[in-house]
Amino acid sequence: MRLSRLHMPTLREVPKDAEITSHKLLLRGGFIRKVAAGIYDYLPLARRTLRKIENIVREELDRAGAQEILMPVVQPSELWEESERWNKYGPELMRMTDRKAGHFCLGPTHEEVVVDLVRRDVRSWRALPLNLYQIQVKFRDEIRPRAGLMRGREFIMKDAYSFDTDEAAANASYDAMYAAYERIFTRCGLEFRAVEADTGAIGGKRSHEFQVLAETGEDRIVSCEQCGYAANTEQAELKPDAAGDIATGEAGEAAEKVATPKKRTIEDVAAFLNVPTSAMIKTLMISADGELHAVLIRGDHELNEIKLAKHLGVSEVAMADEAAVKSATGVPVGFLGPIELKGVKSVIADHSVARITDGVVGANEIDQHIIHVAAGRDFNPTCYTDVRMAVDGDPCPRCGGALRTYKGIEVGHVFFLGTRYSEPMKCNYLDEAGKESPMMMGCYGIGISRVMAAAIEQNHDEHGITWPSTIAPYQAIVLPLQMNKEDVVSTAEQIYGALNEAGVEVLLDDRNERAGSKFKDADLIGIPVRIAVGGRGVQEGVVEVKTRTGGDIEKVPFEPMSTLVERIQALL
Amino acid sequence: MRLSRLHMPTLREVPKDAEITSHKLLLRGGFIRKVAAGIYDYLPLARRTLRKIENIVREELDRAGAQEILMPVVQPSELWEESERWNKYGPELMRMTDRKAGHFCLGPTHEEVVVDLVRRDVRSWRALPLNLYQIQVKFRDEIRPRAGLMRGREFIMKDAYSFDTDEAAANASYDAMYAAYERIFTRCGLEFRAVEADTGAIGGKRSHEFQVLAETGEDRIVSCEQCGYAANTEQAELKPDAAGDIATGEAGEAAEKVATPKKRTIEDVAAFLNVPTSAMIKTLMISADGELHAVLIRGDHELNEIKLAKHLGVSEVAMADEAAVKSATGVPVGFLGPIELKGVKSVIADHSVARITDGVVGANEIDQHIIHVAAGRDFNPTCYTDVRMAVDGDPCPRCGGALRTYKGIEVGHVFFLGTRYSEPMKCNYLDEAGKESPMMMGCYGIGISRVMAAAIEQNHDEHGITWPSTIAPYQAIVLPLQMNKEDVVSTAEQIYGALNEAGVEVLLDDRNERAGSKFKDADLIGIPVRIAVGGRGVQEGVVEVKTRTGGDIEKVPFEPMSTLVERIQALL
Repeated sequence: MRLSRLHMPTLREVPKDAEITSHKLLLRGGFIRKVAAGIYDYLPLARRTLRKIENIVREELDRAGAQEILMPVVQPSELWEESERWNKYGPELMRMTDRKAGHFCLGPTHEEVVVDLVRRDVRSWRALPLNLYQIQVKFRDEIRPRAGLMRGREFIMKDAYSFDTDEAAANASYDAMYAAYERIFTRCGLEFRAVEADTGAIGGKRSHEFQVLAETGEDRIVSCEQCGYAANTEQAELKPDAAGDIATGEAGEAAEKVATPKKRTIEDVAAFLNVPTSAMIKTLMISADGELHAVLIRGDHELNEIKLAKHLGVSEVAMADEAAVKSATGVPVGFLGPIELKGVKSVIADHSVARITDGVVGANEIDQHIIHVAAGRDFNPTCYTDVRMAVDGDPCPRCGGALRTYKGIEVGHVFFLGTRYSEPMKCNYLDEAGKESPMMMGCYGIGISRVMAAAIEQNHDEHGITWPSTIAPYQAIVLPLQMNKEDVVSTAEQIYGALNEAGVEVLLDDRNERAGSKFKDADLIGIPVRIAVGGRGVQEGVVEVKTRTGGDIEKVPFEPMSTLVERIQALL
Repeated sequence: MRLSRLHMPTLREVPKDAEITSHKLLLRGGFIRKVAAGIYDYLPLARRTLRKIENIVREELDRAGAQEILMPVVQPSELWEESERWNKYGPELMRMTDRKAGHFCLGPTHEEVVVDLVRRDVRSWRALPLNLYQIQVKFRDEIRPRAGLMRGREFIMKDAYSFDTDEAAANASYDAMYAAYERIFTRCGLEFRAVEADTGAIGGKRSHEFQVLAETGEDRIVSCEQCGYAANTEQAELKPDAAGDIATGEAGEAAEKVATPKKRTIEDVAAFLNVPTSAMIKTLMISADGELHAVLIRGDHELNEIKLAKHLGVSEVAMADEAAVKSATGVPVGFLGPIELKGVKSVIADHSVARITDGVVGANEIDQHIIHVAAGRDFNPTCYTDVRMAVDGDPCPRCGGALRTYKGIEVGHVFFLGTRYSEPMKCNYLDEAGKESPMMMGCYGIGISRVMAAAIEQNHDEHGITWPSTIAPYQAIVLPLQMNKEDVVSTAEQIYGALNEAGVEVLLDDRNERAGSKFKDADLIGIPVRIAVGGRGVQEGVVEVKTRTGGDIEKVPFEPMSTLVERIQALL
């Protein structure tokens, strides 16, 4: 492809509304343009990269025995009512009404549709296992679309759904998808971790997220350097002895109320009292199923709402409304503490709080705290349990080794669904004895457009994108450096022709631009191999070949042309 | 692929709600399933055929210099307001509101989005011509979705948009797309005609429809056997001398009112009066821009509303409301005639009416007609013009040869848009002199999912589909006829393996079904080459090869296997 013809509107300026790297580079490199909040056009370079990712996904899923289908974007409400999600799903579900007053939504996921498809035509155990997938546009009406393709509203997903007779078979389907995902992300050239994830409100049994490691990732994951265990930070189980004892003074000193005027944050109070934040005990007020609970967490830790919800046996928890807290406890939020706390259903403390022998808590009075507090002596929570996020150095729940935290971008998810959808929607099969049972399901997603963005978050430098070669829009780019020199132009054209002939996906920058500008654009769009054709080199019979990520320029003769072509192919 | 694993739920029964062949066969062959009115799932076989069509389209568009992009399904109302289509587009436009009360629609077409994309980044004549295309899901909220994929609500389209500096360049882009379309439909193995079509309300200058010829087609087209001229029946221009004179009695007889009690239709009246329907003059009452017009058409002809709208200079015309007609003319619909007709803005007669010297018209009284009517003597319309549909035998407007009428299914459309969108949306370019002008556009659609259905309408027999080999989901199918005979099964497996190895897309019917059932399914799903492996044949060292459309069975040795593989490849 000639750049003079390619629609690749690169930008010198960094677009104002772009914050993360992939968003900036996708805009600057002319890969995407915004149509509306969270809705984008994919330009020719992006379309090529997306198709490469799609093709890798297709090949690996086909190899794993899955079959490609295509389900509609527009889905009837009736199916969502059967699964009881029409009312449960929040405003992310884009709903609409057709001209005959029928209710529809834009599919954010396709469990209902695929279950409906399978239950109509599959009756016998002989037809199982069955794994159906599609690559389709999806829509989720995010309240705050952001970060470019990372959290868009309209996006491209691969979603697969497996149907099995029993749990063992469903686990085999799950394992096959897990293995396919490892091959897919490896072939995409990405560094990633498959981490244990929460099965959440859906109530499945197994769940793994595939996380691309990147500094800008929104997800936090932990991985054990010793045994290879990896999990979502929210998911990593922490044993009672995970955190060391905290004692800022001599254990045994009596608790004492002190004034902490106008100190509002944990950090302010800790600094004022000259204690580490780890000696502070935060008292968080949580609303779950309409009831109020107090949760005690060390000042340097973070609440894990998912663990808490599980502990309480509810689908989700939320921070309690301030007015409700005041009315129930008599104390304004910010000064609550576990000593003589009233009006809550229970007080749940993280394991780590049990080890605090000389801590600081709110005094249930404005601008007052209590110091020298010992858990067990000055207050007794309803229970101690694991309700916090893991941090660097926490012990691995599997081997006791040290956990390390990473930031990741979730690009894939495998999920053991069980009978969550097959049971209410009556997606049953008959076994050999003629007995009817709901099918065991799994669902498996890959965010195709998000993989493209995550690849950039992980693969870029100060000059632009550094695409892994398997998903680069083109493999090589030929730069004639002086467009006014006939021998430069004709040599570049010959190289371009020869590479095309050899099946290399190649760009020719035939624009009337200065050399510097051509180098800049080639770096920005991240083409793996660059062939610079300059006046002096042409006279010497050589061109300068450089890989996007390698530092050295290599002078390669272009006569015979086959030598150069072979060298380029070897670099790919 | 093994049929025991393939999700191909064939049906023996003809589904009740399916009327046309493609719909029936797509359902029976397990290609599609209905999700809601006009909304379908595409099962594995259909997905493969769709991808084959998509790939042919991609290759030919890329070859023609177009570049693939992807635009969103969900489009913001703001863009449609700029083009003034937000209000003009009818209820086919599926509108919706997001959680922030923003207005959006599901794209039935993408002119607004692509113009917005191009106007932001393209400024110079140097970047033109530019041709961008996508293959994307589209939605049109049809009032009466029907005929399976023919008139669905959600469908897959390829849409391309060209941008040029001037009309000559835009015509060249148009011609390139026209040529690409001819290659695409030829490669898809379809018999088709590119016909001149109406440019309609959009007001473009050139327009061709690509029509797949099929008995069940909803469109009527004419084609000249002499010069190759082809056009939509609605579009085919008919000269004043296109129809012969009509005289049922001696010219010169005086007009005379006769009673025609309870004769309501043209056919009833003609039979009662013993005249041909071609001697009847229909008086149709038309509403255009709120005004009432009478249109006179021969009883055996059909009104062409598009020609009439053009003649009146309005975007569309409609049959007038009966009550409004009664109130304006004093005559109930059904008895109107041109003699002493009152209350209409104009009386427009088709050219053919001028040649009637002894005709029959309504008498503007209930149950009365006037016979022996001569145009020009007994009534004078405001004008004579071309407002009817062409019929078999009409003279070709280009060479005067005889037109033949066909039925067709529109699968593609190329359209010269001019500045219809670029002007209101300010999609301008600067020419070499720095002068700013709106770009000249063309738009080019192919209904991917409709091509699949149209291919079946054209290619089927009483047993099922007869796919053209380029778009068949698989090229060959191996049928082991006795699953209980080990040598049959192992030979079939070897053939299946060898064909797979050789890159042939092959199915193996390894199901425990009777031979008859396997033959039936293979015919139903239309696989081009069938290899039947039977017990006796295996002992003789031969298998029976038959093409789906060829009559003869050929016995081909399978040792060495390469002989058989070569024979199969030769048949594809």
